[in-house]
Amino acid sequence: MVVVGIDLGGTEIKGGLVDEEKGIINKVSYPTQVELGNYKVIENISNVIRELAKDTNVSSVGIGSPGSIDRDNGIVKFSPNFPNWRNFELAKEIKKNVQKEVFVENDANAFALGEWYFGKAKGLKDFIALTLGTGIGSGVVCNNIFLTGKDGLAPELGHIVVVPNGPECGCGNRGCVEATSSAKSIAREAKNLIDRFPDSLVLKLAGSKEKIESKHVFEAYKKMDPLATIVVNFAIDSLARAIGGYIHAFNPEKIIIGGGLSKAGDALFVPLREMTKRYVMSSFADTYIIEQSSLVEDAGILGAASAALYGKEGRPKS
Amino acid sequence: MVVVGIDLGGTEIKGGLVDEEKGIINKVSYPTQVELGNYKVIENISNVIRELAKDTNVSSVGIGSPGSIDRDNGIVKFSPNFPNWRNFELAKEIKKNVQKEVFVENDANAFALGEWYFGKAKGLKDFIALTLGTGIGSGVVCNNIFLTGKDGLAPELGHIVVVPNGPECGCGNRGCVEATSSAKSIAREAKNLIDRFPDSLVLKLAGSKEKIESKHVFEAYKKMDPLATIVVNFAIDSLARAIGGYIHAFNPEKIIIGGGLSKAGDALFVPLREMTKRYVMSSFADTYIIEQSSLVEDAGILGAASAALYGKEGRPKS
Repeated sequence: MVVVGIDLGGTEIKGGLVDEEKGIINKVSYPTQVELGNYKVIENISNVIRELAKDTNVSSVGIGSPGSIDRDNGIVKFSPNFPNWRNFELAKEIKKNVQKEVFVENDANAFALGEWYFGKAKGLKDFIALTLGTGIGSGVVCNNIFLTGKDGLAPELGHIVVVPNGPECGCGNRGCVEATSSAKSIAREAKNLIDRFPDSLVLKLAGSKEKIESKHVFEAYKKMDPLATIVVNFAIDSLARAIGGYIHAFNPEKIIIGGGLSKAGDALFVPLREMTKRYVMSSFADTYIIEQSSLVEDAGILGAASAALYGKEGRPKS
Repeated sequence: MVVVGIDLGGTEIKGGLVDEEKGIINKVSYPTQVELGNYKVIENISNVIRELAKDTNVSSVGIGSPGSIDRDNGIVKFSPNFPNWRNFELAKEIKKNVQKEVFVENDANAFALGEWYFGKAKGLKDFIALTLGTGIGSGVVCNNIFLTGKDGLAPELGHIVVVPNGPECGCGNRGCVEATSSAKSIAREAKNLIDRFPDSLVLKLAGSKEKIESKHVFEAYKKMDPLATIVVNFAIDSLARAIGGYIHAFNPEKIIIGGGLSKAGDALFVPLREMTKRYVMSSFADTYIIEQSSLVEDAGILGAASAALYGKEGRPKS
């Protein structure tokens, strides 16, 4: 089967023509142009789809978008990228233009589906996919079922509390793993502490306090910079505790981690694997593997395409 | 369908003849007699089954037992109640004697199945069942699937860390919710602190420090005893944080709580419901209900019977 996958960002629409077996055949991207209004955004998405599907028989399209999605009805309930979309019938609007079946999925869930169809979860019945970026997104497959829960809200693994009374989280709670271990949180902690470490390599790499990002912290961490070590150890210890919890909850075969922070590679994964052992009881030891996603830049397109494949077929054949 | 459910304890075998629609029709119990050896235990279980099934056409038996169970093969890998059972083929041994299909399930999972067939989870597709006793056991149904994970180990929700570097847990980790909020942990905390509160009602109710149990602590808590208040608040706050995590992970319709500690009733449930709100992000507010199990003394038999019904039918009709 060949489908179109649309990675719908606030600044760019990335589209791909995706073959179930071969992966991405062709790619097109176009500015989102949110500032020109809903009509223009819909037109731009539709044009990307038309361009990709012009020479191929494509019956369905998957769109991955950040925010709260009603997947059964293809509705964007709320998205940080599109502030004036409230219960916006995205699937219906696109379908009108392109006459194809349209599936909409939250970007983190789409990432998990992408790992299932095209990535390191291929053929697995039990895995967890995490996106470590500005926030922490998650998708879970357990007993060969893509979990969504009663209202389609599950899983929100980024909002498991790992540090009671810890740093404030955007969700209104404190000490969620998103508030301790996301890219945003790592940058925040480094900024909070930088005045006490004025000679830190983090500051040299970033240029100024305001410009500190998580990548500067990880770069300095690799060189054993004291500030970076404190900040990264806290982030990884908290993430390891969260992952330990997920392992007890779901007994997965793999935990696959993507998103911007995963690019830190061994600097993240080597200590994370060691620290996770501490939080896993003996009966679960050696039952799981923590792996870096291999989908990289194409994760968004492949994830969105997988939402269409999943919508059509129900679940990957194993 | 009519099945036999066996609640296999270390001192007593409780059996019930259970009708899928009507519940328990008849009950029989007999001493386990672990001290008389494997042969005798198997004989005693078989006699209870024979007695219950003598006038009825029963094709299958469910056995609920604490410990690590291989449900696919009916094997007790390890059980605290039967120290010399290591990978013991319980189903096979019983089947030899009674010529019926035999299903074996961990007692906490059996409890969850019992809630699904006979309790407050009847007809639900998404719920969590917890047993708050000496330890904390758990079972989860999500998207109408009884979750077990890759190795059948999931879920072990009692071993989610809720207090980093907190009290030692039997599992080897620290600060698991089992180590903060189980009956055993509540008694332990009260004993640890009792010397600082020599006038505490807890001591009067228990008679001596050594005899303190969680029920004494809850009794004193109802009367606003200062020591009991400290201990119970810590236990409930930690449990609320754990439940908040489960809600984000599984998006359940209900969290049903049974086990010895649930008998505290409103003294447990009223503050638990309030404190859980703190740990649940706004999109999940009002999506769940925390309820006390209604199965009470029959939970073990009904759970074991449900393991047989589940084994035969796959899942309750909804």
